[in-house]
Formats: sequence, C-alpha cells, structure tokens
Amino acid sequence: MTSDDLAALIRTIPDHPKPGIQFRDITTLLLDGAGFHAAVSGMAAQIETRPDLIAGIEARGFLFGAALAHHFGCGLLTLRKRNKLPGQVTGINYALEYGEDRLEMPHGLVRSGQRVVLVDDLIATGGTAWAAAQLLSGAGAEIVQAAFLIDLPDLGGAARLQDKGLKTSSLISFAGH
Amino acid sequence: MTSDDLAALIRTIPDHPKPGIQFRDITTLLLDGAGFHAAVSGMAAQIETRPDLIAGIEARGFLFGAALAHHFGCGLLTLRKRNKLPGQVTGINYALEYGEDRLEMPHGLVRSGQRVVLVDDLIATGGTAWAAAQLLSGAGAEIVQAAFLIDLPDLGGAARLQDKGLKTSSLISFAGH
Repeated sequence: MTSDDLAALIRTIPDHPKPGIQFRDITTLLLDGAGFHAAVSGMAAQIETRPDLIAGIEARGFLFGAALAHHFGCGLLTLRKRNKLPGQVTGINYALEYGEDRLEMPHGLVRSGQRVVLVDDLIATGGTAWAAAQLLSGAGAEIVQAAFLIDLPDLGGAARLQDKGLKTSSLISFAGH
Repeated sequence: MTSDDLAALIRTIPDHPKPGIQFRDITTLLLDGAGFHAAVSGMAAQIETRPDLIAGIEARGFLFGAALAHHFGCGLLTLRKRNKLPGQVTGINYALEYGEDRLEMPHGLVRSGQRVVLVDDLIATGGTAWAAAQLLSGAGAEIVQAAFLIDLPDLGGAARLQDKGLKTSSLISFAGH
C-alpha cells in the first residue's frame, strides 16, 4: 500500500474545529484493517534503530505508539494530559495558539539513557512534540526520533523540530492547514 | 511470562482516586517491553475468532486495542468520550457510581454484521463495557467477545456481562476493589 493509498483512506472534515481548517480524520483509516496495518508497518520501517521505549502522545498517539511498541517488543510510555495519571507525575506546560496545555508522565520511571521514539498521529506546528521531547530529555532520555503518520508541512513543525536537532519521519503529507 | 509475572509488573497506588481504593496502575507493565508484548499476546490468544474490528475504549483501551488490531491485521474502532470525535457521531449515555458518562463513535462507519471484539485494560463493574456493547449492537455489529487485561472479580462486571450473553476474557485477576 503506497502513501497515496493511505492518504486516500483519511477523510477530510471541512471547517473543523473552526472555519477554514480541513481536519484530517484518521477514523476511516483505522477502520480499514489493511490500511491500519500498512500505516503501522510503514512507520516502523522509518524507525532506524530499535528503541528502548516508544512514547505515545494522548490520545491518537496511543494508537500508533502501542502498535509500534508491540511491533518492536519495546516498552510504551504514555504521555498524558493534565490529571490523568495516578501517583507522582512530572509535567511540562506549553503554549498553544490560544492558551496553554500540559503533558505529564509518571515520575521516576524513565531511566537515564533510554532511547525513546516519540509517536503521534500528526505533526502540525510541532508544539506538542517539542514539549514531549523536552519532558523526556529532562528525565535523561535520548530522543532518537519523532515519528508521525501525517505531516502538514505548510505549518512547519517537522522543519522546526529538525532545526532543533530532532530527527523526524512521516508517511503522509497534506498541503494546506 | 505467566499471569503472575504480569500481575507483578502492575503497581498498586493506594487510596486512589479515593480512600479505600487500591488503584491498579498499568504504567509499569507498559514500560516493560517483554511485559507489554506478553500482555498483548496473551490477550490475543484468548480471542477465539479473528474479528473484523477491535473496538478500543478511550483511553487505556486504545493501548491494548491498537496492538491487538495490528496483531490480527483487522480494523480499529475508537470509542471515545464526549466531544472528541469530528464529524457526525452516534453516542450512548450511561450511569456511573456518581453521575453519568458518554461514549461516542463515528456515525455510519460500522457495518451491519461486522464481528467486533471490545477491548479495555480493566473490567470493574462492567458499566462502560456494557454501554459500548449496546452502542455497537445498535449499529448492527456482532459483539463476539469483550477482552480485558485485568478483571476485578469482586466487583462482578465479568459475571454481569456473561449473564447478559457477552463472552468475556481476562489475563489477570485482582481480589478486592
């Protein structure tokens, strides 16, 4: 299955969540067994070294992150939104277009030197992925790559991460916002 | 890896989210590559027929659901909380111990007769799983099984689902609440 085949499985919801935004909805790709399998296998093929951990970003990053962790037989770290994790957490606040958001991970469970691949379904401006990378670096992890299913290159996120020294990969690219 | 080995990878957070509740936290199992792989493989081995779809319940059900869908090469349906999905949705409200919650799925994408395995990390009273089964049945799907990593048998959820004719499976069982 080519990247174009995969892109054709993604539906576009016009003007969501606000006028002028074409929302790329992966629901239809996930429901297609061959499509989901090809998407995960394609993302795995772009990951050059077997990581110690896959870090999936809540919530759609969990879908590809979990399948990739099972594929590699490596551990899975869930980066969650505010107040979702039990026990002690380490978190980072980061700016959104309007307002602020926060990612949290369990405190003290990521070990220094662990090689981590960050996973999310989509990269837009890259703000969330960069916050995740900072959070993991703060715990001593080595972020070897950030892997996405979809890139929106017009928003410049992947270029921004690469400028900061973070290797990125994606399977599908959509022009526009 | 035996069920006891897997159970030993799960940590207990006492008195979370409220006094008297021993919260079973899978974070530590997920971070263990061999543990996560064995958990997914063990859940897969309990699923008797290859389904058309795995339905994962937000958010921890996504972790096992996605890995299982990739394992079987079948489609993945995400059952999400209120207002998370774009486009038209079909939803169901259901009672919690205090108050009400809601699950939603995309409207019109599940086809009549599709064989679905419901997946979540844990079954307690079974309220969420039963709501998910009702939602899917309403769309004409056939729920062939509900698969969990953890059962809390003292809360009676699995027995309740089985009484209603829904086959259930789980890998790990913890006494108490």
